[in-house]
Amino acid sequence: MTTFPFAFAMAGGEGRTEILWMMLAVFGSAKLLAELFERLGLPGIAGEILAGILIGPSLLGWVAPGEVIRTMAELGVMFLLFRVGLEVEVAELTKLGGTALIVGVLGVVVPFATGWGLFQLLGRPPLESIFVGAALTATSVGITAQVLASKGLLHRPAARIILGAAVIDDVLALLILGAASSFATGTVNLMQLGLTTAFAVVFVVLVARWGRATVRTVMPRLESRLQVGEAQFSLAMVLLFGLAVLSAKAGVAAIIGAFLAGLALSGTLPRRIHDLAQGVTELLVPFFLASIGLQFSLAAFANWSTFLLALLLVPAAVLSKLIGCGLGASHLGREVAMRVGLGMIPRGEFCMVVARAGLTLHAISPATYRMIVFMAVAAAMLTPPLLKVAFRGVLAPPPETEDVFRIG
Amino acid sequence: MTTFPFAFAMAGGEGRTEILWMMLAVFGSAKLLAELFERLGLPGIAGEILAGILIGPSLLGWVAPGEVIRTMAELGVMFLLFRVGLEVEVAELTKLGGTALIVGVLGVVVPFATGWGLFQLLGRPPLESIFVGAALTATSVGITAQVLASKGLLHRPAARIILGAAVIDDVLALLILGAASSFATGTVNLMQLGLTTAFAVVFVVLVARWGRATVRTVMPRLESRLQVGEAQFSLAMVLLFGLAVLSAKAGVAAIIGAFLAGLALSGTLPRRIHDLAQGVTELLVPFFLASIGLQFSLAAFANWSTFLLALLLVPAAVLSKLIGCGLGASHLGREVAMRVGLGMIPRGEFCMVVARAGLTLHAISPATYRMIVFMAVAAAMLTPPLLKVAFRGVLAPPPETEDVFRIG
Repeated sequence: MTTFPFAFAMAGGEGRTEILWMMLAVFGSAKLLAELFERLGLPGIAGEILAGILIGPSLLGWVAPGEVIRTMAELGVMFLLFRVGLEVEVAELTKLGGTALIVGVLGVVVPFATGWGLFQLLGRPPLESIFVGAALTATSVGITAQVLASKGLLHRPAARIILGAAVIDDVLALLILGAASSFATGTVNLMQLGLTTAFAVVFVVLVARWGRATVRTVMPRLESRLQVGEAQFSLAMVLLFGLAVLSAKAGVAAIIGAFLAGLALSGTLPRRIHDLAQGVTELLVPFFLASIGLQFSLAAFANWSTFLLALLLVPAAVLSKLIGCGLGASHLGREVAMRVGLGMIPRGEFCMVVARAGLTLHAISPATYRMIVFMAVAAAMLTPPLLKVAFRGVLAPPPETEDVFRIG
Repeated sequence: MTTFPFAFAMAGGEGRTEILWMMLAVFGSAKLLAELFERLGLPGIAGEILAGILIGPSLLGWVAPGEVIRTMAELGVMFLLFRVGLEVEVAELTKLGGTALIVGVLGVVVPFATGWGLFQLLGRPPLESIFVGAALTATSVGITAQVLASKGLLHRPAARIILGAAVIDDVLALLILGAASSFATGTVNLMQLGLTTAFAVVFVVLVARWGRATVRTVMPRLESRLQVGEAQFSLAMVLLFGLAVLSAKAGVAAIIGAFLAGLALSGTLPRRIHDLAQGVTELLVPFFLASIGLQFSLAAFANWSTFLLALLLVPAAVLSKLIGCGLGASHLGREVAMRVGLGMIPRGEFCMVVARAGLTLHAISPATYRMIVFMAVAAAMLTPPLLKVAFRGVLAPPPETEDVFRIG
C-alpha cells in the first residue's frame, strides 16, 4: 500500500512505526510546503493541500489515505471550527442572519442548477445531472475558516456571513442529498425528508440559541465542584465531542456541532484553555489540509473527454458559488459580496459523500466520481489565493504568529 | 463489533460517526471515573484505566480497541513523555546516571529470573518460561510519568532515576526480546543481536548527549528565518515525530524518541509552546490510560488454573520490579528505593509485544498470553495508588490544576 523508505524494526511494531512515519510525512511535508509557498508570496494553506497531492498515491506514494489519517483530518477540521466558534459571538452571527440565510439559500440553488444544467446540456442521464448538481451544493467551510482565522479576519462582516451561511448551507445540503437519494432509489418519502430536515433545523437552532446561556449557568457550578485536573478543558472536550456526535446523528456535519460547541463556550473559557485547544488544532489542521490533497487522483486525466469535463466542472463549481453567494450579499456592496462569494467556494467532505452515494446507487459513473473529487481538490486549492486577493485591503503586513486567534 | 446506543444518521457517514462516538465514550468515561476516584481519595489515573475496562469488550462493549483508538493512545503516551522530557534537564539525569544504570539492569535481571523461575517451578516448557520472563522485563514508564508529572514530582531524585532507568530498561528489553525470539526460532545470531543493541545504544547516547546542543544552535537560526505561522511549534512537532520514528527504527520504543525530543528541546521553548503541546497531551493521555483497560479480557478467568496462575503472576511482576529496582537505588535510602521500585512496576506495550511474539512463535499458549495481558493491566492499576502512598510525605495538599507541569 505504501512505499517505505527505511528497513523495518525487528520488534513486531511494523504497522505502528508505519503510522508514525505517515504522520511525520504528512505534518512535515505540509509545513515545508507552507513555508515554501509563504516565501513565494502564495498562501501557505494551498501549500499544505499541495503537500497531500505530492506525498499521496498519485505521485510519491508515501502516504495512502487510511483510517487513521482520515480521523486525524476530521478531528483537525472539528477543532478548527471549534476554535473559530470560540472567537465568535452568537449575537454577531444573528445580526447578519438575514443576509446569511439568503447567501446560504442562493449558494445552494445556483450551484445545483449550474451542475444539473451543465450535465443536462452535455446530454448526460437526468439522474447523473441531479447528483452532480447536489455535489456542487455544500460549502466545506474549513479551508475558508483557516484562512480567516490565521489572518485575524474572523470579525469582518464577510466572515460572519460566511460562517452563518455555512451552517444554513449544511442543513440544505442534507435535504438535497436526501432528495437525490430518494430519486435514485425511486422511493420519494417527503414525510421522512421533511422530518429529517426539521430535526436538523431544530437541533441547530436550539443549541445556537440556548447553548451559551446553558453553558454560562452550568459550567461554573460544575467546574468549581470538580476535583479532576484541567476540569475546564475536559468539560470543553466533552461538549465538543458530544455536540459533534449529536450533530452527526441529527444529520448535519460533525463540524457544525464542533462550531456550535465553540459558540456555546465563547467568552467563558480563560486564555490558557484556548491555548490548549489551539495546540490540538495546530497539530491536526495540517492533516485536514493534506488529506484534501491525498484524495487527488491522476485517474481524472485518464482520457481527453474526462479531462475536459473536469476542466468545465471546476469553473462551474467556482463561479456558481461566487455568483450565488455574492448575489445574496450584494446589498452590502461589491467588496463584501466578493469576499462572501469567494469564501463559500471550497467543497469537501460532503461533496465526496454525495459522489460516493451516487456511485453506490449507480447514478453516476466512476469517471464522473473522479471528476467531482478533482473539482473539490481544485476548488480547495484555488480558495486561499482568491481570498488573499479579496481581503488585500484589510490585510496588515504579515501578522505576528502569536496573534493568530488572538483578536477580540 | 461495537454496540451502539443510537440510530445511525442517513448521510453515509456511519463509520465516521462511530469513531467520534468512541472518542466521546473513551474521553468522557475516563474523565468521569477519574473524578469519581479523586473524590474517593483514590488516584484519578487508576480511574481512567478502569474506564477502559468498563467500556471495553468484556463489560459494556461500547468501544473495541481498534486502529484509531490505538493510535490515539500511542500518540498520547508519546506526547506525555515529550512533555516530561521538556521539564527535565539532561544534566539532572546524568548526575544520577550510575544509579539509573544499576536500577535499569537489576530491574530487568530480577523480573526475568522471577518469571522464568516461576514457570520452571510450575513445570512449564522452558521456552514458555523464557517468554514469560522476557514479558516481565520492560517497564512502561507512561503511567509513572503521568503520576509524577501531574503531582509536580518530576524533579525529585527518585523521578530522575526512574526516567533514566526506563531508557536503559528499554534498550535491555530489546536485547532480551531478540534473544528470546532467536531461541524460539532456533537461529541464535549473536552478531546481529549485538549489532542491533549497539545501534540502539549509540542512537540513544548520541541524541541524549548532543541533541540539546544541536537544537540550541540550529533552532533559533531556523526559527528566525521561517515565515510559516507557529514555526516553533511546527519544528518541535517535526523533531518529536522524527525522533519517534528513528527510535522505532533503531529498535527502541517510539516513546523513548519522544522523551529524547523533549530533552533536546528543554529550556528552549517559550511557555506558550509548552501549553500548545500540553493541550494535545491533555486530550490524548485519557486514550492511553483507557486503552490499557481496553486490553482487559474476562477470558483470563476462563478456568481456575488460569485464574490462579494470573494471580501468582501479578505479585511476581510487582515484587520482582520493586525488589530489583529498589535494590539498585538502596544506597540512596529506603524511601527513595521504595519510590524508584514502585515507579518501575508498570508494564505495557512492550510486554504485549513479547506476549504476541511468543504466541506467534508458538512459544506460549493462548492462556498464558491472556495471563500476561491481565498482569499488565493489573500492574498498571496498582501503580498509581502505591506511588501515592510512597510520595505521601512530599505531596502538598491537592495541587492547583494550573500548576500541573508548571514546576521548575
